[in-house]
Amino acid sequence: MAEIGFVGLGRMGGNMVHRIRRDSEHTVVAYDSDKAAVARAVQSGASGARSLGDLVKRLETPRIVWVMLPAGEVTERTVKRLAGLLERGDTIVDGGNSRWTDDKRRAKELRAPGIHYVDVGVSGGVWGLEVGYCMMVGGPQGAIGRLAPILDVLAPETSAESRAAIGPRGWLRFGPAGAGHYVKMVHNGVEYGLMQAYGEGFDLFEQCEYELDNAKIAHLWNQGSVVRSWLCELAARAFDQDGSDLPELEGYTEDSGEGRWTIADATAHDVPTPVITAALYSRLSSRGNGDFTHRVLAALRNQFGGHAVREHHDGAA
Amino acid sequence: MAEIGFVGLGRMGGNMVHRIRRDSEHTVVAYDSDKAAVARAVQSGASGARSLGDLVKRLETPRIVWVMLPAGEVTERTVKRLAGLLERGDTIVDGGNSRWTDDKRRAKELRAPGIHYVDVGVSGGVWGLEVGYCMMVGGPQGAIGRLAPILDVLAPETSAESRAAIGPRGWLRFGPAGAGHYVKMVHNGVEYGLMQAYGEGFDLFEQCEYELDNAKIAHLWNQGSVVRSWLCELAARAFDQDGSDLPELEGYTEDSGEGRWTIADATAHDVPTPVITAALYSRLSSRGNGDFTHRVLAALRNQFGGHAVREHHDGAA
Repeated sequence: MAEIGFVGLGRMGGNMVHRIRRDSEHTVVAYDSDKAAVARAVQSGASGARSLGDLVKRLETPRIVWVMLPAGEVTERTVKRLAGLLERGDTIVDGGNSRWTDDKRRAKELRAPGIHYVDVGVSGGVWGLEVGYCMMVGGPQGAIGRLAPILDVLAPETSAESRAAIGPRGWLRFGPAGAGHYVKMVHNGVEYGLMQAYGEGFDLFEQCEYELDNAKIAHLWNQGSVVRSWLCELAARAFDQDGSDLPELEGYTEDSGEGRWTIADATAHDVPTPVITAALYSRLSSRGNGDFTHRVLAALRNQFGGHAVREHHDGAA
Repeated sequence: MAEIGFVGLGRMGGNMVHRIRRDSEHTVVAYDSDKAAVARAVQSGASGARSLGDLVKRLETPRIVWVMLPAGEVTERTVKRLAGLLERGDTIVDGGNSRWTDDKRRAKELRAPGIHYVDVGVSGGVWGLEVGYCMMVGGPQGAIGRLAPILDVLAPETSAESRAAIGPRGWLRFGPAGAGHYVKMVHNGVEYGLMQAYGEGFDLFEQCEYELDNAKIAHLWNQGSVVRSWLCELAARAFDQDGSDLPELEGYTEDSGEGRWTIADATAHDVPTPVITAALYSRLSSRGNGDFTHRVLAALRNQFGGHAVREHHDGAA
């Protein structure tokens, strides 16, 4: 029986606590700045903490604290505060989407106080609660060994075809701190490419000479076709729920950084990634970026060919 | 119990005949210019024909003849010859990867002699024998109705989540002749994008700062991750068989036309397809195309900056 502290009980963290408690005897001490989230974790069978300090006090040494917060400032601040509260031999796990270079820096900073740092790239979204979370792990062997019982519960059972390659549960250590988030980062870059490829196909179906039903196509493609996938299953579901031409949705796509980090590291290693790059650029364009390019093009076409221009009217006009 | 003639008994056609005979009581009359292929079909339980004319003679009217040949000239020639042998009310099915515009033309040409034309886009490759073939169908309702018992055997059983949307078997009619191959063409365009996205990710893993094992990553990604898919399962299989850095394979990718047709029709309808396009262009580059671009770039860099150029040596030097 293992014990873990959980900091950050949003959609991902809250579900993970729920899965640990539902599917194992491991104990969880849970903290979030939102008291309602802590109350939900307590209903899942966790013990609730009033503060980070309280969480640390309630855990037996050597402690493991899993931070499940948005990457960036809030994760950075929380890791720093935990580092001040934890003791030599304890472990901090970052389960968010941190950039792998931040993991390397933190692991180095925590070496002097003797705190282990483990990064876990988590894929599976809200479906992870039922399916299990696919986890890409980096950090020291010993700390990951102590974390393993928790990872085993969070992960899905490995499919029969993959058991010989990766063992019975769907998580794997890829190297020192940073390696987990590195593999997860590229996973997300690939995901951008996959999503954009499907998107382009369905966009063409909307515009082409035939009257096609995207929901039916997505459902059909999941029956033995080469493009069958979990994302294609989600597409079928989305078209079922929102209509085959998604009338209520705006074509606006955010990104949380992994795509651009992937491209930056790909160029650093001379690896051409035209599809991942095109997918990211399409997301940027979907937010209106690149508009000035087309003002320049309009101006130039007008200059050399006298082509008509459209005048821009801002909202205030 | 239905009856069908099969022309073209290669890897796809031969397996399809085998599946029909193995899983149903439908009768098949099979023909191929390769006598060994006909002999194999006979072993599968088909009746073998000595010629196209013999095949037509052995079928009861109204006949259905499925042509399963490489798209292009050989399919065109075979459809024409069959049209001369068949009678009013008979049906020709093209199960190859014809361009949808060819289907539309053929369907029109066959209208005067009263021969029905059905196009079936077939996905699933060599795995279709066991899994079933995902089929995208175009053509007249009546002819497809007569073909349905055959399609039902060739297709996989629909998954529970998709049964309400598309019925019990994995095939669907999308419209008049051409519509089936149109949906299949875009399917293949999407497939290019998916394949390239995975390829770029694994390429980066080969070059990055960590020692990573592509086989393990592909296996892991199939355990609940967002990018899990059949193609990712095939990637795991390929890395297992050929080694994680695929030492024996040349990075040379063919295409059989669907990607470029997809892009051509996308531009005709003003649909931007950056990922499908980038994926096709990457295939073209993999064959050495685009080399002259880089000779021009080398020449220009030398002109404006005195940058060194590499001299080209052809094989004869």
